[in-house]
Amino acid sequence: MSEVFSGIDVSSVRKITCIGAGPIGAGWAAFFLSRGYAVTSYVHAMSEEASLRALIDDAWISLEQLGLADGASIDQLSCTDDLALATADAQFIQESAPENLELKRTLYQKLSELVPANVVISSSTSGLKMTDIQSTCSTPARTVVGHPFNPPYLLPLVEVVGGEKSSPVAVEWVAAFYKHVGKAPLVLKREIPGFVATRLQEAVWREALHMIANEEATVADIDTAIVNGPGPRWAMMGPCLAYHIGGGEGGMEYCLEQFGPALKLPWSRMEAPELTPELARKLIDGSLEVAGDRDYGTLNRQRDEGLVAIRKALDGVFDVPD
Amino acid sequence: MSEVFSGIDVSSVRKITCIGAGPIGAGWAAFFLSRGYAVTSYVHAMSEEASLRALIDDAWISLEQLGLADGASIDQLSCTDDLALATADAQFIQESAPENLELKRTLYQKLSELVPANVVISSSTSGLKMTDIQSTCSTPARTVVGHPFNPPYLLPLVEVVGGEKSSPVAVEWVAAFYKHVGKAPLVLKREIPGFVATRLQEAVWREALHMIANEEATVADIDTAIVNGPGPRWAMMGPCLAYHIGGGEGGMEYCLEQFGPALKLPWSRMEAPELTPELARKLIDGSLEVAGDRDYGTLNRQRDEGLVAIRKALDGVFDVPD
Repeated sequence: MSEVFSGIDVSSVRKITCIGAGPIGAGWAAFFLSRGYAVTSYVHAMSEEASLRALIDDAWISLEQLGLADGASIDQLSCTDDLALATADAQFIQESAPENLELKRTLYQKLSELVPANVVISSSTSGLKMTDIQSTCSTPARTVVGHPFNPPYLLPLVEVVGGEKSSPVAVEWVAAFYKHVGKAPLVLKREIPGFVATRLQEAVWREALHMIANEEATVADIDTAIVNGPGPRWAMMGPCLAYHIGGGEGGMEYCLEQFGPALKLPWSRMEAPELTPELARKLIDGSLEVAGDRDYGTLNRQRDEGLVAIRKALDGVFDVPD
Repeated sequence: MSEVFSGIDVSSVRKITCIGAGPIGAGWAAFFLSRGYAVTSYVHAMSEEASLRALIDDAWISLEQLGLADGASIDQLSCTDDLALATADAQFIQESAPENLELKRTLYQKLSELVPANVVISSSTSGLKMTDIQSTCSTPARTVVGHPFNPPYLLPLVEVVGGEKSSPVAVEWVAAFYKHVGKAPLVLKREIPGFVATRLQEAVWREALHMIANEEATVADIDTAIVNGPGPRWAMMGPCLAYHIGGGEGGMEYCLEQFGPALKLPWSRMEAPELTPELARKLIDGSLEVAGDRDYGTLNRQRDEGLVAIRKALDGVFDVPD
């Protein structure tokens, strides 16, 4: 049973505390600064300040290219190793401490005492469950997971999910807040290990490891295959929309008829689920929803324009293997 | 034991036959036309010519934006339903007939009789083994797989592998030829089901299907997670280089120390291989090879510049979910 949570208006947030001086903590700090917020970074020791600021300076180059919010400035950053000072007046806390359950539990206990209960504390954890982190915290209702992708100042995804004691209102609040600041929050239906994006990424990684271990492919082969093959498509569309377009005018429905049987083939070390009529229906309806009002011709054209734009954009910027 | 094969000089190829009028066959025809070749498309029936030409016209828009070779012209395309006529004078054949083993076997038998044995026949097959396709062909030495990614006129990857009776010289020839025309050939160590890129893609697809079937995520969730998360990185780097950068100054070695244990976690339905010292060594050495002379700072900067470029390039071109 969760406590009651009532958050402040997302648009009234001005001050944010970012806990952690690593690439994720620094990345979040840079991002919030670029959106015009005042940010206090909590560091474990002041000796970390220089590297934190160096990471933020690096991120700032990209953030400037994408456009800063009015009034955004690195001067809005302060840094302290005093947790009470770091969290004073904070209206939102993004926690990116090391991935250690005991460390995070202790931290959340302390934060409970320091921070008013209407301030959301969102954890960047990629591997821990909020149910476990919040178990010994006295104000668990406002604690949630807000898992970013690296680098957090450039990739929009934030996977959002509460633990057993999180208030659904706090989950809604943080999703609305991330959206407000220009992120792409994805609210998970429930806590699953690795969330959604990391599971997909991990599937690629494990298949790659199997191929490398079996000497079916080298590291360079794996990377070449992604970058010159499905990778550029994934920059703009997920596998569902990609197959929906791959099905031509017939869309996902035709695609499943043609390639459904391939699920039985040993095309990956992963066992496939049964392609039941219910699963097929979810795929077809879901793909139509993602496609929106874009018909096949439009999607096909957009995909090609996107691929041309990506190829031109990367030319001379990133050394792509060939 | 494979027959002897001796190919013509790759740079002397002028005439190419593309078999098949679907998106893959048409895509190859468009690509070779854009590189300045004379192309004859073989269609099953002349009634397919109009849709073939429409597909090529569509592809041409993108190919023009990327830049045509000197003398490249759609007028260099001819189309016939006479296989003998289609293959007369061909110096290279790209076969993209339907994915049906019996159909392809019959086709390769006919091609054996029609086409001189020093002309390479490369199959776009994504799911069949060349060992099976070439089993009843009288000149199997010059038959190979050259599997493209859709759309073949924009994605550079071509997975190349021979069957049991293919000449290694023919495999080398076709890899050199694809490279010559601007493709990114990936020569496989041996025939494995789904080749390399499709296996990686299939792993993502199966994990996605499991999540959708279990109601852990919707179709839209899956696509959002890819596009706003790992997708943009995959447009320029594979998972190995991405983790090599993720490891910071310590590279892949540090990354494996930190995240190696996560292989034991249920972060995907796929069982992970054991992270043996031998596998770790392959990953570390392979990543350093992919990184080349780029140190961490350079790679980090290149990645950010690439991500900024991709985001800017797609703005207004492709409707990315948020």
